[in-house]
Amino acid sequence: MDGTRDIEALIEMMARLPGLGPRSARRAVLQMIRKRGQLLAPLAEQMSKVAATARECLRCGNVCTSDLCEICLSDKRATGEICVVQDVGDLWAMERGGAFAGRYHVLGGTLSALDDIGPEDLRIPQLVTRVREEGVSEVILALNATVDGQTTAHYIADQLEGQVRLTSLAQGVPIGGELDYLDDGTISAALRARKSI
Amino acid sequence: MDGTRDIEALIEMMARLPGLGPRSARRAVLQMIRKRGQLLAPLAEQMSKVAATARECLRCGNVCTSDLCEICLSDKRATGEICVVQDVGDLWAMERGGAFAGRYHVLGGTLSALDDIGPEDLRIPQLVTRVREEGVSEVILALNATVDGQTTAHYIADQLEGQVRLTSLAQGVPIGGELDYLDDGTISAALRARKSI
Repeated sequence: MDGTRDIEALIEMMARLPGLGPRSARRAVLQMIRKRGQLLAPLAEQMSKVAATARECLRCGNVCTSDLCEICLSDKRATGEICVVQDVGDLWAMERGGAFAGRYHVLGGTLSALDDIGPEDLRIPQLVTRVREEGVSEVILALNATVDGQTTAHYIADQLEGQVRLTSLAQGVPIGGELDYLDDGTISAALRARKSI
Repeated sequence: MDGTRDIEALIEMMARLPGLGPRSARRAVLQMIRKRGQLLAPLAEQMSKVAATARECLRCGNVCTSDLCEICLSDKRATGEICVVQDVGDLWAMERGGAFAGRYHVLGGTLSALDDIGPEDLRIPQLVTRVREEGVSEVILALNATVDGQTTAHYIADQLEGQVRLTSLAQGVPIGGELDYLDDGTISAALRARKSI
């Protein structure tokens, strides 16, 4: 009796993960039970390992297992450039691209009057302190091209005005993108930012 | 350094679950790390609990924590009816419906010449034994309406012919279904099985 309740509790917990609902959580749990030797037991172990060690970098907000993350600790990344991103997921996306050699600052969200999220909830004061103390030459605002993302970018730009060079990611046609499938806003932005060949 | 590798290993494991890919696994792991107190640690604990106790019912193949599952142990379900399903997920779906009061037999798949899955891989011999030993009056073949499912149903029907009453789920228009969105096969089947009002 208790066992089935355990399985149901596990399904409920899995269903709370982003991207999974009750139905896919059930499927995932069944699959895990079917392969409990190769899948469920190692996954449980790995999770408790990560739960015990994972935390946030005190400086940039990246996920790590010590006070400072690998990127903050690396001498090679001390280029004086800070890339401001919304979430750790965005930091990982930037790192996959592999084009940025500086350090990051993870805000942990965007400003939102509706959800009552102000600058203090977003590590923005910490960013201002870092710019002052770390000899930063450029802050790249790599925030999402959404209304909330752009509001946040404007607020940060106001805070840092005159202290440092401020840039944002270029907007335009994505690599491999077809004009026919692009929205009007992107096409207009790409046209305004056109370059001579 | 090792910590990040732990997180990456966790993402890789999560990505192997059905319904999750690399991208959604990353999102799920990030969310878990963000809420590690409420989400990651309890989930790890629940998983190792289930991993330690979950196994298959020796009689019907349902998921349970003792030799026999709750349904097989319950006296109320000894109605002499066995419902044959492909997977434990199908058993759960039948139970959610709540219309069946008998016991189940989980095949664990369907016959497939391509994947080299024969009757011995599917608990079909066990079903034949159960029909002989448990005083079964009716076997309901609740297999999926796919080619593999129907092939398996035909094979089982051959095996049990003359020993027991054999039935299958009715085919027709789903409750709430609109004719315009149904495939031709379903409409034909519903027409052939039409009932007088």
